[in-house]
Amino acid sequence: MSINAVVIHGPHDIRVEKRPLPAIQEDHDAIVRVSVAGICGSELHPYRGQQKTTFGHIMGHEYTGIVTAIGSKVTSVKTGDRVFGLFSTSCLRCWFCKQGYTNRCTRSLALGTAQINGCQAEFVRVPDADGSLMLAPPEIEDELLAMMSDIFPTGYYGAMRAISQLTQPLLTAVTRGCGTVFCVDTVEDRLAEAKRMGGIPLRLGTDDIKAAVLKATDGRGADAAIENVGNEAALSMAFDLLRVCGHLSSVGFHQSALPFTALQGYQKNISLNMGRAPVRAILEEALEVFVQNKDKFTNAVSHRLPLSDAAMGYELFSTQKARKVILRP
Amino acid sequence: MSINAVVIHGPHDIRVEKRPLPAIQEDHDAIVRVSVAGICGSELHPYRGQQKTTFGHIMGHEYTGIVTAIGSKVTSVKTGDRVFGLFSTSCLRCWFCKQGYTNRCTRSLALGTAQINGCQAEFVRVPDADGSLMLAPPEIEDELLAMMSDIFPTGYYGAMRAISQLTQPLLTAVTRGCGTVFCVDTVEDRLAEAKRMGGIPLRLGTDDIKAAVLKATDGRGADAAIENVGNEAALSMAFDLLRVCGHLSSVGFHQSALPFTALQGYQKNISLNMGRAPVRAILEEALEVFVQNKDKFTNAVSHRLPLSDAAMGYELFSTQKARKVILRP
Repeated sequence: MSINAVVIHGPHDIRVEKRPLPAIQEDHDAIVRVSVAGICGSELHPYRGQQKTTFGHIMGHEYTGIVTAIGSKVTSVKTGDRVFGLFSTSCLRCWFCKQGYTNRCTRSLALGTAQINGCQAEFVRVPDADGSLMLAPPEIEDELLAMMSDIFPTGYYGAMRAISQLTQPLLTAVTRGCGTVFCVDTVEDRLAEAKRMGGIPLRLGTDDIKAAVLKATDGRGADAAIENVGNEAALSMAFDLLRVCGHLSSVGFHQSALPFTALQGYQKNISLNMGRAPVRAILEEALEVFVQNKDKFTNAVSHRLPLSDAAMGYELFSTQKARKVILRP
Repeated sequence: MSINAVVIHGPHDIRVEKRPLPAIQEDHDAIVRVSVAGICGSELHPYRGQQKTTFGHIMGHEYTGIVTAIGSKVTSVKTGDRVFGLFSTSCLRCWFCKQGYTNRCTRSLALGTAQINGCQAEFVRVPDADGSLMLAPPEIEDELLAMMSDIFPTGYYGAMRAISQLTQPLLTAVTRGCGTVFCVDTVEDRLAEAKRMGGIPLRLGTDDIKAAVLKATDGRGADAAIENVGNEAALSMAFDLLRVCGHLSSVGFHQSALPFTALQGYQKNISLNMGRAPVRAILEEALEVFVQNKDKFTNAVSHRLPLSDAAMGYELFSTQKARKVILRP
């Protein structure tokens, strides 16, 4: 039996092809019949040819679905359960998972990369299902829930790292919480969403971003900057916008150099966190915040397409004509 | 009236010269008759010609002494008080000081640099005395107390930043506190001190440092690395020794590039803090720890010299023949 799947064959070369129905291979595996699969911004890196990778794998790491089979050692989900998946797998058994570093699980696989086939397909095989699938909360519909695979918990982690740095126990005098939040983007549509949620939109290339930040902070610069996109220019801007003793929280995937020297870092007294978010470790906390605020995200998805139109979905997203694309097998 | 003072005229050119007796210039100033003044490792950067600076100023930023005059707005110390000074001044009135970022006080001056004359002299003028001088605890003798100007609170801050990162609230499962501490140095004498205090000494150039760290951590790498010296090779080694999701706490003064790329930082999921320690903000806490452990530091000073022998003191320290040099005017 075969399934329809979205396969990348090279930059700008997305094809929907027949692939074999995935089957349980290891005791910790589960098979999920995919209900919806999102296209993530990080998938634009290989799509645009900006990331070194091999091709030929099934794309996708944001998804919801129904469990159709489980391996003998899976305990947290069962056949028939409605679930959502996380963008990378976590075994929950290794030293790193046990410390909460589920982002660097020793068995971790990033779905939809050369490491393992992804979820933009009718079915997906999920290794280490106990750490990689979560039961779906009944009150959240599929296309919204797909945001919990990566972008919401990753963004939440990026923000919480920034806030926790500014409230770290050694410097107890520092003001807690967030005041003014500026959102920098190039896409008008996303900026409008940011504004609707209470952020102050700043349009890259048009607005004077540094002037706005300096004006809001009596000339000091931002207390914290969250870099979400994995782009050297964004990281450079984030560093530049920070005040001294500010925190740079970077959750984007970077392939370049760091845009500041050790001297600049010393002079800015910077603190920094970089890398993949430990979404499994923070999932319960992030999900609670998401469920409480679900009404704010009803506009999140702009395009819903059948899986067969995946190539169009990638192109719309890459050319910034879509805010968020959901594929339905 | 004139005083004897240690003046740097260029790399390896330290001279003891007559300078005018300093006087109160601003309402927040104090004048201190210096009892002892230390030579700090960071002063070896200009001494060795490794740091771009102008010359001709009085050196020194570690000191104890007796207050001989105060400006009209000084409230925390009075004439006759036994005090110790901090390596950089903090006004305690600006936004940064009020947040606890006394390291980046907007009026901050680093003593003994081209910014302002230092304390390796019979008298020193101390701006913003309320934030820059501390009353001396009677139970700590002068030469030990001079460690509280910079090296102890800076080292304490570096260590506490590392520990607080590993216990940050987002990842509550992480083990608290420190287990094994490796101390990397080239000076046999300092390594022996490190061992006496409970650290495991590793000699740079002789011991296989990475192998020792990997062996102690089941091959993972160090949970945290504290870089104290302001040297690109040390920063590079610290990065290399860290496990993924480890923390690099750097309090040395750097003038070079960062020895890792954004891709390496992402892949290591690093967190990092860099820059000058906010010694005034953490002073009470650090002092309490220092007083509790004062018996451990009795060997800290290896050479006591009259101020007139300052040139010899710098040379002994620079050539690693002295562990710590104290000058007495």
